[in-house]
Amino acid sequence: MKSYLLLIVAFCLSLSLSLTAQTIEKVAPGVWKVTYGTPEKFKPSDFKEDPALDALAKMSGNEKPPFDLSTIKFKTTSRGCVAELTMEDSEKLYGFGLQNNTFQQRGLRKEIRVNSWSTGNVGFSHAPVPFYVSTKGYGVLVNTSRYATFYCGTMHKASESINLKEGGNSNVASSTLDLYKPLEKSSDNMIIEVPSEKGMEIFVFEGPTTKEAIQRYNLYSGGGCMVPAWGLGVKYRGKGDYNDAKAVKLAKYFRENKIPCDMYGLEPGWHSVAYSCSFVWKPSLFPNPDQFIDRMDSMGYKLNLWEHAYVFPTSPLFDPLKDKSGNFAVWKGLVPDFVDPKAREIFGDYHEKTFINKGITAFKLDECDAADYKDAAAQWSFPELSQFPSGIDGEQMHQLFGVLYQKTLLNVFNRNNKRTLLDVRSSQAFAAPYPASLYSDMYDHHEFVRMISNAGFSGLLWSPEIRETKSDADLIRRTQSGVLSAQLLFNSWYLSNPPWLQYDYEKNNRDEFLPNAKELESQIRNLLELRMSLIPYLYSAFATYHFKGIPPFRALVVDYPQDSAVYKIDDQYMMGENLMAAPFLDGASKRSIYFPSGVWYDFNTNQKYEGGKAYNIEMSLDQIPLFVKEGTILPMAKPVQYVTPTTVFEITCHLYGKTCKPTLLFEDNSYTLDYQKNQFNWISLEWNGENGKVTKTGKYKVNGYKVTAWIKH
Amino acid sequence: MKSYLLLIVAFCLSLSLSLTAQTIEKVAPGVWKVTYGTPEKFKPSDFKEDPALDALAKMSGNEKPPFDLSTIKFKTTSRGCVAELTMEDSEKLYGFGLQNNTFQQRGLRKEIRVNSWSTGNVGFSHAPVPFYVSTKGYGVLVNTSRYATFYCGTMHKASESINLKEGGNSNVASSTLDLYKPLEKSSDNMIIEVPSEKGMEIFVFEGPTTKEAIQRYNLYSGGGCMVPAWGLGVKYRGKGDYNDAKAVKLAKYFRENKIPCDMYGLEPGWHSVAYSCSFVWKPSLFPNPDQFIDRMDSMGYKLNLWEHAYVFPTSPLFDPLKDKSGNFAVWKGLVPDFVDPKAREIFGDYHEKTFINKGITAFKLDECDAADYKDAAAQWSFPELSQFPSGIDGEQMHQLFGVLYQKTLLNVFNRNNKRTLLDVRSSQAFAAPYPASLYSDMYDHHEFVRMISNAGFSGLLWSPEIRETKSDADLIRRTQSGVLSAQLLFNSWYLSNPPWLQYDYEKNNRDEFLPNAKELESQIRNLLELRMSLIPYLYSAFATYHFKGIPPFRALVVDYPQDSAVYKIDDQYMMGENLMAAPFLDGASKRSIYFPSGVWYDFNTNQKYEGGKAYNIEMSLDQIPLFVKEGTILPMAKPVQYVTPTTVFEITCHLYGKTCKPTLLFEDNSYTLDYQKNQFNWISLEWNGENGKVTKTGKYKVNGYKVTAWIKH
Repeated sequence: MKSYLLLIVAFCLSLSLSLTAQTIEKVAPGVWKVTYGTPEKFKPSDFKEDPALDALAKMSGNEKPPFDLSTIKFKTTSRGCVAELTMEDSEKLYGFGLQNNTFQQRGLRKEIRVNSWSTGNVGFSHAPVPFYVSTKGYGVLVNTSRYATFYCGTMHKASESINLKEGGNSNVASSTLDLYKPLEKSSDNMIIEVPSEKGMEIFVFEGPTTKEAIQRYNLYSGGGCMVPAWGLGVKYRGKGDYNDAKAVKLAKYFRENKIPCDMYGLEPGWHSVAYSCSFVWKPSLFPNPDQFIDRMDSMGYKLNLWEHAYVFPTSPLFDPLKDKSGNFAVWKGLVPDFVDPKAREIFGDYHEKTFINKGITAFKLDECDAADYKDAAAQWSFPELSQFPSGIDGEQMHQLFGVLYQKTLLNVFNRNNKRTLLDVRSSQAFAAPYPASLYSDMYDHHEFVRMISNAGFSGLLWSPEIRETKSDADLIRRTQSGVLSAQLLFNSWYLSNPPWLQYDYEKNNRDEFLPNAKELESQIRNLLELRMSLIPYLYSAFATYHFKGIPPFRALVVDYPQDSAVYKIDDQYMMGENLMAAPFLDGASKRSIYFPSGVWYDFNTNQKYEGGKAYNIEMSLDQIPLFVKEGTILPMAKPVQYVTPTTVFEITCHLYGKTCKPTLLFEDNSYTLDYQKNQFNWISLEWNGENGKVTKTGKYKVNGYKVTAWIKH
Repeated sequence: MKSYLLLIVAFCLSLSLSLTAQTIEKVAPGVWKVTYGTPEKFKPSDFKEDPALDALAKMSGNEKPPFDLSTIKFKTTSRGCVAELTMEDSEKLYGFGLQNNTFQQRGLRKEIRVNSWSTGNVGFSHAPVPFYVSTKGYGVLVNTSRYATFYCGTMHKASESINLKEGGNSNVASSTLDLYKPLEKSSDNMIIEVPSEKGMEIFVFEGPTTKEAIQRYNLYSGGGCMVPAWGLGVKYRGKGDYNDAKAVKLAKYFRENKIPCDMYGLEPGWHSVAYSCSFVWKPSLFPNPDQFIDRMDSMGYKLNLWEHAYVFPTSPLFDPLKDKSGNFAVWKGLVPDFVDPKAREIFGDYHEKTFINKGITAFKLDECDAADYKDAAAQWSFPELSQFPSGIDGEQMHQLFGVLYQKTLLNVFNRNNKRTLLDVRSSQAFAAPYPASLYSDMYDHHEFVRMISNAGFSGLLWSPEIRETKSDADLIRRTQSGVLSAQLLFNSWYLSNPPWLQYDYEKNNRDEFLPNAKELESQIRNLLELRMSLIPYLYSAFATYHFKGIPPFRALVVDYPQDSAVYKIDDQYMMGENLMAAPFLDGASKRSIYFPSGVWYDFNTNQKYEGGKAYNIEMSLDQIPLFVKEGTILPMAKPVQYVTPTTVFEITCHLYGKTCKPTLLFEDNSYTLDYQKNQFNWISLEWNGENGKVTKTGKYKVNGYKVTAWIKH
């Protein structure tokens, strides 16, 4: 019997080994799918939104793949499945999701593994995405929820050495640094290994430019997310153990001091049990939640509740979910099997009934990544070997958990025709349509800025949140980076008072304020007002993200892929179509800034810079590192304290240069999803050299903007 | 056709899933093998030495397994194979090879992955071994060359939460440290996951004590290694770019200044090309290697050559190995497929003819681990997805490469009946019989000492090498730790002069000596002479390792598994049967030292300490942190400058306490393997209270010792 079985197994193996050729299928305009063998279930695409096919069809260059897809070499091994692509010498690679400490990825090994910390620079991330784009103008996504590894030109084959008779190192190294230095030259191989799988599915996105490849990836994902206008305002998260009265007091402080704030977030203390969660208000801190919600709402705050998805035994969600969860606990809580639509429904229904219907506008979805890999003792997360009733295992669930968690709650908001903006600590592939911004406990300022640049390659949003800081300058510069990001977020979950009143942790919690607290408060107010002024511009950039797939925040290389000077620039980025940000890091007052081709205006002084080179630029703390491309009409709003359903933004159009291109403003009901039913307008702002012209196109009947002035610079 | 194939595959799968029960087999006295499914080829045991069955049979408690082996639960998953064992609450776990920054392993996740750096504390190591021992008195080895992960009680099952209605955290954390703190209590599950495999083989070693479980593991591996007596002397590795004249000059320095030194090591510069290696002398530095070897030999030095196994194209080994190597290059060099006996033969024959027959006595086998995992740019090593002609893949090869490399060269020494002591940067399971000492670029003093303790759990030897240091005290204390280790090694590969003349790197290489260089030299000389005095004791401890499997260096918990006070003590350890070392770290002059039960003597002052408690102990730099158990007869030799084939050690027996147990000295030709033909003696040293007695048992005809005095303390 045994040898008979072995024979059959051998027969199966020999057959499967003979299935070596891939199938190539055009799945959307400019998007191809290459399939080899039999990829596993639980692919990222199994949970994605429908592609924005119409928008894809409108793009040019849809006819043929960016390279010959039959040249991709695949094989299965005892470890999994391997694909090999080749690269040209000149190509640079970007992407792989929310990478914190690398930017240009060629020459690096990247392991796409969700994790709460980065573990060197190997690719671990809150939101690692098995997707990269090339400066040659194409994108590649490996459709797997396994921990895939990309060897981006790091490996040389033995066969390359056969005819090598020189180039050996006859100099003797004198330090370990010298010994283990990186390759002199990266190889031309992109080798991708997917563990455990016996097949692979690769999506290839046509360019012909880098930006278009990204656009196609985002549109194939379903288009970029539409955030509510209030989501582009200011978010403040108060101390974790604050009760209702303290939260209200803090909320009043903002209003009384005319400091803009749209969103207020509660941290873990609101749960009767947290770590894991009860999803029930704690009576001692919030005896009357409905009243509290109403009170915050009456002050114009959008209330956001912290949670994670792990369900403590005393939670009302525990019994309904106990046979729809993984076999390992996290902080004694169940891990819901969000692959199962029924588990998503139970979790979502509870949130709808208990929170969303009561006026909660958003959630912070914490801890949906994984425990710090490096720390073998602090293993709070579920193991990769976990099993879930749906059949997904722990590794796959780790990779998809953030996205599935987002889907679970967004589904409820969507069916209620309510827009939201979530905070979320993990995401993955095809996430562009989800209005959710990533955040992290990592707190290096340069990394925070680099993540703004990197997030844009992979359909992600990122909040470089502001916590306590180490100096006035550090506070201001970090706040500026927040102002110049997708979501401006102060996270004071362990601070009694806002950081601008005292940025020292201990003193803050003893209510000892800085001597210059009021002065700092005023500087912060100015910055937050600037953010409020940018809302129409940013809101329209998000609409462009939705309809065209162009990321509102993106690295310079996306717009200037032919300019090799930008290949390593990870601390400057484009904001919308016409603005370039160049944050000053760690409280610095000087930095080198590179300007791509064209002429650029300093937003503060209107000083002009000729592009194609770098300048050493000094800025005082009251200046924001923002630059405007010549030919721009920049619509700036009169700042409001917070956005309401009836807010009409008063717009001043700033004109940079003698001739300006028209600018488009997007107008709709930013509280609902009615834009999906064509209830929106595009407002064209034009300048003929002497007069401004405002032209509205669309079916939406309510005015969101009022253009009041045009100013030449 | 396709659906037919799927049917057959489904049939195969259903059959393989039904094979769930394990087979249990007694493979040696006190050693059981549990097999589940079909483990892969290329298991560590495929390359192991024959077990020391006679020695195993002599041990007691061989009848039944330490626990019911049928209770081990196995399953296969899409990721690989999982085993689950249970533990008692009181059990503590140790082992997993050369762990640098963890000691007691329960409560930790351990990933057994060979690597040149540790990556947090997750288990990566130069010599990770999928083996642990429990204080309950058993050992478990997972016989895999995959990167197995051991969840040592880190995970709680969801089922444990079902009836949990309290214990939730209603306190609100106020720091991230607080949030992610380790489990309050480790679970009772040991869960082992082996990736890619569809079966698992587990060896279980009976105790009944922790020490006996380790002994059985070592004896089943083939018994502990026998090192030559000269290998227990002093090793010095000179600067990497030194030529013959400079090496000879340094060698003379030792002799002229009466500083003991047995072994001199050449670093990479001797190769005509290094990184990767030519295995050919560089004519510009070593125009006449034979003459150089003779010159060093005439001064009594054993010459050791640095190399790694990666073969540069200009090497004479390249053509013979090019179709017997992996498909990826390392530093442009071939990676020989050492699984293939023919590849081992080619590599070994070349070394025999070119080096060993010419008088080279040992090699340093560098870089056989893997590139630093954390650094995605410095990927010098071969990837896990590599393929080798024998069928082994890169992951498995990484795990076994160090052991196979050792085997390749030891085979040549063995067939020439020559003993050696290799340096090696990687090892794995079943390595006890290999005379090879591990080393590392990591340089934390506490970790270096912890690795002495940890190496003893898994049949490994470890050299806490001395490089440059930061102060007189640091130099002395590190040298003391070297004296109290398996191999005393100064690695000056980037220093022109010995570190005791100048420990500042820059100044050393400018020949600027410390003002007190001669004084430090004298202190070092004293320490090295102490090491030479300990050779007979250590040599006999190694013989005990060989014949009984008791590690010569081992953590206190091995000898005192019932004393919970030692469970966390990783900076004290036993040396041979009767000595305890307690190194002073980082130049300290005070430390707390715990004494297990009994009475202990300070080696320097003979002060007595009552065991069962800890003392704060102060030691000046001329005192060595070494303690002698009451009842010991400690044989100390008159120090020689270096060991020769005719060395006769003059022994003084030091008596500690009124009544002393007999001590055994091992005597043989320490240059050859004649002990395997019973050519050895055991010399019993006994003291009846008034007189000493020396009794020799055995067939070896040459005297290696002369007992000259007995001293009471």
